[in-house]
Amino acid sequence: MTNVREHVYEPFTEQSVLVYLENKGLITDIEQVTCKEVGDGNLNYVFIVKDLQTDKSLVVKQALPYAKVVGESWPLSLDRARIERQALQEAAKYVPALVPEVFHYDDDYAVTVMEDLSDHVILRKGLLEGNLYPHISAHIGTYLAENLFNASDEALGPIEKKKLARQFVNPDLCDITEKLVFTDPYQNAESNSYPENLQETVKSLWEDDRLIFEVAKLKKQFLTEGETLLHGDLHTGSVFVTEKSTKVIDPEFAFYGPAGFDIGAFIANLTLNYIAQQERADENKRTEISEYLLETIEQTWAVFEKRYRELLLEKGFEERQRTNQYADYVLEKIWQDTLGFAGCKTIRRIIGLAHVEDIDGIEDEAGRLQAQQRAIETGRSLVFNRTVWRSPKSLTAYLKGLAK
Amino acid sequence: MTNVREHVYEPFTEQSVLVYLENKGLITDIEQVTCKEVGDGNLNYVFIVKDLQTDKSLVVKQALPYAKVVGESWPLSLDRARIERQALQEAAKYVPALVPEVFHYDDDYAVTVMEDLSDHVILRKGLLEGNLYPHISAHIGTYLAENLFNASDEALGPIEKKKLARQFVNPDLCDITEKLVFTDPYQNAESNSYPENLQETVKSLWEDDRLIFEVAKLKKQFLTEGETLLHGDLHTGSVFVTEKSTKVIDPEFAFYGPAGFDIGAFIANLTLNYIAQQERADENKRTEISEYLLETIEQTWAVFEKRYRELLLEKGFEERQRTNQYADYVLEKIWQDTLGFAGCKTIRRIIGLAHVEDIDGIEDEAGRLQAQQRAIETGRSLVFNRTVWRSPKSLTAYLKGLAK
Repeated sequence: MTNVREHVYEPFTEQSVLVYLENKGLITDIEQVTCKEVGDGNLNYVFIVKDLQTDKSLVVKQALPYAKVVGESWPLSLDRARIERQALQEAAKYVPALVPEVFHYDDDYAVTVMEDLSDHVILRKGLLEGNLYPHISAHIGTYLAENLFNASDEALGPIEKKKLARQFVNPDLCDITEKLVFTDPYQNAESNSYPENLQETVKSLWEDDRLIFEVAKLKKQFLTEGETLLHGDLHTGSVFVTEKSTKVIDPEFAFYGPAGFDIGAFIANLTLNYIAQQERADENKRTEISEYLLETIEQTWAVFEKRYRELLLEKGFEERQRTNQYADYVLEKIWQDTLGFAGCKTIRRIIGLAHVEDIDGIEDEAGRLQAQQRAIETGRSLVFNRTVWRSPKSLTAYLKGLAK
Repeated sequence: MTNVREHVYEPFTEQSVLVYLENKGLITDIEQVTCKEVGDGNLNYVFIVKDLQTDKSLVVKQALPYAKVVGESWPLSLDRARIERQALQEAAKYVPALVPEVFHYDDDYAVTVMEDLSDHVILRKGLLEGNLYPHISAHIGTYLAENLFNASDEALGPIEKKKLARQFVNPDLCDITEKLVFTDPYQNAESNSYPENLQETVKSLWEDDRLIFEVAKLKKQFLTEGETLLHGDLHTGSVFVTEKSTKVIDPEFAFYGPAGFDIGAFIANLTLNYIAQQERADENKRTEISEYLLETIEQTWAVFEKRYRELLLEKGFEERQRTNQYADYVLEKIWQDTLGFAGCKTIRRIIGLAHVEDIDGIEDEAGRLQAQQRAIETGRSLVFNRTVWRSPKSLTAYLKGLAK
């Protein structure tokens, strides 16, 4: 079912990618460009190709047939390049300013050629440097509302939704999420990764049958609820920013799942940053950063909710979807799922395979341990309180209680 | 995305189908067979081909590119022939005795050649003739448990489930169900069909905002919850029976949806028959038939639940799915969905496009009206009480209250 002709595919080099681009007419003179591979080489190559005369540049992203980051050699379908590219193109229909522009693609080579965003910085990195981005909540809230609504049954109706959903069946990458977010952190799995001094906290989590059962329910939702086209991995490392611009990148985990998963991922990563900042930030900047992060959590949901409701009331496929009662119902479900998935996403970043620099980079060992324990406890609270906490205010009030 | 090469396809005639079968080596001598088209011509051709010398026979079912039954000319993808055939083949892996055997298929011609079941009778017809089939609940309960479990995430794990689900994306036929079961009966739609003297009852249903909202929720579940591979149209007209044998036919509506939908469809049709029998059955047989039907409703669920739990505990893909706590959770959800969908299925058969002979065939006009009103009211109770009624006993107690 892959669109990639494996016999054609080969990984590019900094040289061969230029020959390819010239053949496709995407660069005119091989001698007048520079090319640099800047990917981490775990999942993809990322070549930045710059025209020396015009100073214009583009990015060539090529999928590799394995995922070193997950296991020593976890084979991965190259079809994810198609999925990522199509997800970018879907998003460009609704929020073109919030995603990189796609200039060219080639499913045989698992390649997408797109806008170079080297003038942007990864949001996670920017936040860790203590920068505040005032437009993030408006941009990400809008990105979420437009994408999550416009791919739903309520926007597309019976036929178009199913056709689109079929394009985004994504077994390999969903498998990674299922294992690393919902399964492995809750048992003694080989993929787990946490420091020795966290063993006791982790063990008590593995013995928390009530939590494990709630996470099993959330996993079942993730597996079965094909509500809309998700980004699938919307953490702060998937967002490029400048002071004014926001670009959501890397939707290779895109699939039809529960809308709350994307929102939960984003809120979880802001939450992790908040917890980390209590240990990291200068005392005289900590209050400002903390307030900014809590405001961003609240506003991201507020912007999302307002716009999603507008879209549903204006564009709901059926008359009876265009009511506030139905909107309340849909948004309440999304909110509860957001909290539950945010909880799983918070916990996995401490115990599971892939960590976040926010926490791991805390230099003081005692502070780092404290942040790790707080993150796990916050994750637990998010999961347990998902039907109790009625708005982001409940979460931000909880987080305020963790402030230094 | 269809597998049918439209330029090859043409509808067979009683003559051309024999030439086709001879070419494929499925019959040896055209002169020694009889062929009769017995389909209703609304959706499909059904040819029964009988060898005069051996008296062996087979059925050739061919999809037609429209659905006369739905609208004057509602075009329908021929791909449904592939879906039906593959659904039969999936079921044959687990319950070969409960489905017709597939001998040959040809997606270009939208054709499936299968076991002839002319010695069986359609369950709806058998029940209307006053026959009791003692094995129905065991057979259908098993059919439901095996099929609904074995295509689920819990049985197949992350990769195989998604590959199978992709095969069964079925926009055209889901569209029919969505309109005729969840939408049109709840508004003044052209497709509706009900007698003049029911207008008042129907009007009060259209004004029942609480019911309409609950049905909107059930529709959202039908649209988004891809739990397992459903038959998709499991009414008593999709079941062939003899005293000892049960064969589930016609899974062309198959798709990944909520497990309770199939069980609800079957229970709704037994419920409709029960309501009808209060008006139809001879007084001295009515008690026996009524008790049989209530027992069949209870036992179908009991057999399903027992076997589904066994399968989950034995074969659950993950350790934490193989617990009674998780099984309770999954089965409680399926039960609630069963009631809700049974409610929608009951109402649609009175107000919507496609009726059932059980009710429509009641000769006495007052009796027929009474049955129609009771069916609508029962449907409403099923929807409203889906989280209240804890077992089939609640439903059968309700139905006993309707007995003459």
